[in-house]
Formats: sequence, C-alpha cells, structure tokens
Amino acid sequence: MKISKKIQECSLSPMRKFYPSVLKAREMGKKIYCLNLGQPDIKTPVKFHETIRNFENPVLEYAPSPGIPKTINVIVDYYNNIGVDITSDDVIITTGGSEALSMLFTCILDEGSEVLIPEPFYPNYNTMIRTAGGRIKPISTSPEEGYRYAVKEKIEPLINENTRAIMVTNPGNPTGVVLTKDEMQVIADIAKAHDLYIIGDEVYREFVYGGEPLASMGQFKEIEQNVVIIDSVSKRFSACGARVGALISKNKELMSHALKLAQARLSVATVDQLAAAALYSCDDEYFKEVREEYKIRRDTCYEKLMEIPGVICEKPQGAFYMMAALPVDNADNFNRWLLEEFDDNHETVVFAPGSGFYTGGKGVNEIRIAYVLKKEDLARAMELLKIGIARYRKEVMGLDA
Amino acid sequence: MKISKKIQECSLSPMRKFYPSVLKAREMGKKIYCLNLGQPDIKTPVKFHETIRNFENPVLEYAPSPGIPKTINVIVDYYNNIGVDITSDDVIITTGGSEALSMLFTCILDEGSEVLIPEPFYPNYNTMIRTAGGRIKPISTSPEEGYRYAVKEKIEPLINENTRAIMVTNPGNPTGVVLTKDEMQVIADIAKAHDLYIIGDEVYREFVYGGEPLASMGQFKEIEQNVVIIDSVSKRFSACGARVGALISKNKELMSHALKLAQARLSVATVDQLAAAALYSCDDEYFKEVREEYKIRRDTCYEKLMEIPGVICEKPQGAFYMMAALPVDNADNFNRWLLEEFDDNHETVVFAPGSGFYTGGKGVNEIRIAYVLKKEDLARAMELLKIGIARYRKEVMGLDA
Repeated sequence: MKISKKIQECSLSPMRKFYPSVLKAREMGKKIYCLNLGQPDIKTPVKFHETIRNFENPVLEYAPSPGIPKTINVIVDYYNNIGVDITSDDVIITTGGSEALSMLFTCILDEGSEVLIPEPFYPNYNTMIRTAGGRIKPISTSPEEGYRYAVKEKIEPLINENTRAIMVTNPGNPTGVVLTKDEMQVIADIAKAHDLYIIGDEVYREFVYGGEPLASMGQFKEIEQNVVIIDSVSKRFSACGARVGALISKNKELMSHALKLAQARLSVATVDQLAAAALYSCDDEYFKEVREEYKIRRDTCYEKLMEIPGVICEKPQGAFYMMAALPVDNADNFNRWLLEEFDDNHETVVFAPGSGFYTGGKGVNEIRIAYVLKKEDLARAMELLKIGIARYRKEVMGLDA
Repeated sequence: MKISKKIQECSLSPMRKFYPSVLKAREMGKKIYCLNLGQPDIKTPVKFHETIRNFENPVLEYAPSPGIPKTINVIVDYYNNIGVDITSDDVIITTGGSEALSMLFTCILDEGSEVLIPEPFYPNYNTMIRTAGGRIKPISTSPEEGYRYAVKEKIEPLINENTRAIMVTNPGNPTGVVLTKDEMQVIADIAKAHDLYIIGDEVYREFVYGGEPLASMGQFKEIEQNVVIIDSVSKRFSACGARVGALISKNKELMSHALKLAQARLSVATVDQLAAAALYSCDDEYFKEVREEYKIRRDTCYEKLMEIPGVICEKPQGAFYMMAALPVDNADNFNRWLLEEFDDNHETVVFAPGSGFYTGGKGVNEIRIAYVLKKEDLARAMELLKIGIARYRKEVMGLDA
C-alpha cells in the first residue's frame, strides 16, 4: 500500500512532537512546565459552562453546514464593532481556526502554488499548505530587525506566477510582532497590485500590549475582495478545546467554493457553537484583565530570559509567544534531554524547538516559548531553562561554562 | 485571485444543497418533511447531556491530538467485543467520520490516484477524494441485482497502477446493502492480492434488519495491514452534532502519517469527546430498541413507496436509506419544485436528488430517501411524494397521468 507524497513531506508538529516524552516524564514523577503549546491557563468564561449545562435538545442534531445562525451573528457583530463591514453571508463557522485554514488552502492552491509567509511561522501552516498541493515561500526576517517583514522591497521580488496569497499572522505567532497600520497598508497595496489573496490569521487580535487598537485586514475597504480572515475563539476566550473558529471573506466566489467543503464535512459541533456564541457577551473589562495578565507574563518571561547568558530574544509586542536563540547546539535534542535526562528538584520544562518554524534547516538553536502560565510558574520555568542550559552545555556539549 | 482546480471539480452536497430553499419554504409557512439528511429524530441517550452538564474544568483545554485516552479506550473495548483486535495505538479520534475520511485520503492519494467505490455512493466521498488529488472509479451496480457489488469479476478489471483502495460502505449509504461474510471475504482477497487499502466505512454497523451479526472488515486477520475503519458516534447514538468519529487501523506506517494531520489541526472538541465516551455505556437493549424502530420505519416507507405508480426501489437491508427511481424527468428539478411550488395542506417533503450519488450523469430521476422520521410522518411524507409526483407530471411535464 502506498503513502501519498504530500503527507511524506509533512512533519509532526514541533509543538506536539514531545507529547509521548512528556507523558513518560510525568510517569517518572516529574513536574513539567509546558511552554510548548499555546494552551493558556486563563479560566474559560463560565458562560461556556452555563451554556452547555443548559443544552436540553433531546436530539443532538447536525448544525447547518455554514454554522448556527446565532453563532454567525455574534461574530458579525464583533467585526462590525471593530470597523469590519461583514454580513452573515461572509462567515463560515469552522472547527477551530485550523479548519478555516485547511478549507481556504484547498480552495485557492493548485499543485505548485506558493504562499508568501514571513519566517519564522506557525508550523502547521506548512502541513496545511503541503497537503493542499502548495508550498510556503518564506519572507525572511531577523531578530535584529525585530522580525518585521512588511517591506515592499522584501516581498515583491518573491512574487511570481505561482504566488496565490500573502499570509499575515497579526499579532504574530511565534514572533509576537504586531503590524502598524502603515505596515498593513504596505501588504494591502502589494496584494492589490498583484491580485493576491491576503490571509489575515488574526486569532491573537486581543493580545496586544502597547495600547494598539484592535486591527484587522478587513478594515481596508479597497482590498475587501482579496482579504480572508481566519478567526477562532480558542485564544480570545481561552477556549481552545471548543474547536470553534471562522472563515471570513467578502469574496463571494471564494465563499461559494468553501461552502462545498463545509457541506462535505457536514457541520461543526453543535453544543460548542452555542457555547462559543455565549462567550461573545464578555465585555471589554474581561479583555482588559486578560491583556494585563499576559503583559505581566511577557515582562516576567522576557526579563528572566535575558538573565541567561548567551540567549538572544526580541521583546514581543503581541500574542503570547517569543522566539529565543539559545547557546545550545540543537534545540530539538536539548528539549528531549530536558524531558528525558534532566530535572531540578523533580521539575523540568518543555518548549517548541525552533527549526519547525523555519524552512531549510534554519532556527536549529532556537525555541518558541509560549508564556501561558502564571508569573511565578514562568519565573520557575525560566530558572529551569537557565539551569538546564548550563548543565546541557557541560554534560552533553562538553563545554566548561 | 485564483480558485483551485480541485475545488472547481467539486459540487455542493446533494443532501444539503436545498437548505436555502428549505428555509424559504419554512418562512412561507410550509411544514417540511426532511428526508434529505441522515439526521435521525431518535433521542440522543441522556448520558451525553449528563456528561456535558458535569464538565467542570475551569480551563477548556485542547485535548491530546490523537484523542482523549478515555474516549480511545471505550472505542477499543467496543471493537474488541465484536472480535476486532485493536489497541489504543490503532485509533485516532476525529471530528466526525468525515474528518477520518479526509485524513485518510490525504495520506494515501496522490494526483491521479483512484479509489474503487460501488455506485451509487455517499456523495461527500467525491469531494474528499477530489480535494486530496484522487478520483472515484465506480463499481457499477443495478437495482435489479440489488445493488450488490462484491463480485471478483466486477471489481478486478477496474484495478490498475493508479488504484490505491477499495471503499466498502457497509451497511451501505445510499443503497442499504449489507454485505455477507462471503462477500466481505471476496473484497478481502482482492485487496490482499493487489496490495490495496480496504476502507471500511462502517458507521451504520448497528442498523441491520435481518439479524446479521455486527460485521467489520477489521475481523479479517489476514488483511489487517490493509484495513482502515471509519467510525462515528453520529448514527450509532443519534449524536450527529457531536462530531466525534475515529480513524482506525493496525497499519502503523499509515497511522504515523495520519498523526501529522491530527497534530496540525490540534484536537477534537474536548467536551464532545468526553460525552461521546459516555455514550458507549449504552447497553444492547438500547440498540435493540433503535433497530426495531428503524425496521418499522423501513417497512412503512418501502410499502408506501411501492404504492406509487412507476416507482422502482429495492428493499434495503441496513442503514436508514433507500434509493428510488421516480417517474419524473429530473429529480433535482422535482425536489426544487416540491419546496418552491408545491404544497398539500401547507405541507411538503424534501429528498436528496440521486445524480450526486453517481458519476457521469447517471441517477437523474432517482432520489435517496433517509427514513429518519417516525412511522406516521414517513407515511405522510410518502403520501406527499405520491401527490407531488402526480401533480408534477401533469403541471410541469405536461403528462396526463
């Protein structure tokens, strides 16, 4: 029996590949600070629990394929409130932002199509694009430039007849870069000039720490046919396990094709859609508190990280991730060693190794840190990282200090 | 902006394409008997509601990508009980059986790969196979032969270097065909001889009306590396809106690739997985009652249908569907007419038009009937069909009787 070429070109998720090692380390009695997944420890608003508790339909039916009208409507309201002019026809509810991405790539990529994505990028993009027949064309960035990429001279030379889209993860995962309005305009102008889709993965929109207004590529009227927004309740409401997201576009042709895929997979989970809709009644106070909490976490994490000799890191402005280069030979090996060989007082830590966030073998000594634990735990995790690096350099790399 | 070739080759679901017309007809005050979707009206066991009511984790976290261990374990037990020797490593929990199918096709199909499927078939297979780069090679059947297809001489000539798999929907959707053990052996032998995957879509396993034992391709030890089972709680427990299914195979290579896709989409909804696991504590009595109910429905539906002049139909042995050829020119037009132009005492009926269940323009005057309503409603629906056919033939086709 044969295995497809496309799946052979994909890898396990760098965020999740150590799951078996994590289980083993736990069995050995180790406490693990998990900074590999974007899984916040913030409580999910109780409206979620209340809604599922009140679900009384005797028959758990399929929802409509494009989504439950109520769920669609709260999302439309949310966007209208931030100046994005959409209606219910412009929204398909999806099983997480992930399904929105898969659907989109299936609709717009042929064999050999290219998507421009700033590097480092969210690794699951690669799997989704590969399995749709396309490939990522990376827009290079560097920590020295603060990972910024919205520069015409950087992007335009990468465009060719295979280019279908520019992907903008804003705020950025894994870099935490938040685009300025001017930078968004640069991307808008390029997409317009070259007739490309702009994919705005904006699931971290609420997580900005410099007082920026909530931004969306959907706010640029002149490119509304080009723009596709990927959205999700996972991070916004700390409801990752709901698996409720949305594919949003005013491009009717695109949405009519996406509907075929929505119908083919029947529907998104009924109860979760209803509970997700209820989450949208959270007020600004909720977001303010969460934002404050993450800002403290970012600062704690960054300060502690900067105390470790040899670490290079850019302070992120948004989302809840930071990339860091470590003074180790191979972050993949180092992570495995942290789980399997290392502990300090029966505790260890796990990150996502960086190479999966890059193409072509870059990022080998980098990690992505998800600062999703409370301040004290982050401080301890950074301490474990510091101790771990010192011991790894000595015991594995054979260095003196 | 471009749209991919593969999505242009797909269609809207014949089961769901009339959804906008259904909404409009309801707005006009019509009561509609919906026999287009496999959406049972059987009550979901209250264990589902109880479990979600008791969900108290303050943070709604991602589940593990392969599935929650508890959910995997009840599925393993279920299969072990019917003589299928699997372990927890052989199961990935998926968002409905639909996601299991998509994952599988992505893993095994390249551009131009072929999957042998008896025709008529579940139309969403086409979308899933097309978007993975492959195509359906139909195994022809006829109502005269009772839609049976497990015949060596029928199948082997269709196999070529592009063939990757034989798809066996058992019990069959839309035909209701239930394979005998001997027929399953025929498929097993062909797959073994030609090194093909056997995809056993067995989500209707409990719905057999001739006293057959619960069968699975997984019971054939000698082809365990070839077999992939698609499973779901949707029909088994009338829990379509849970979107919980499973991809099951003892082929470790295949499952290791499928895990990449499971990780890329992160997880299946947490609460639904837990509630789905609870459903598996339903006892045989539950299934016996449900089976009895569907048997009555099948008989009612079939008897009433046979009273309509010019209708051709084979009595199904399993699942809850039947295909019927109607004395109309075009079942697609007829269905639209039923919703938009027709009513009898403010009531009408909707089916899935048959052509979407076939390749190459066949099945134009056929429909798929999902007998998912209670006896009285089915009887009325068949009456509406009878009146509708007579009026359509007169008013639209211009025939006298």
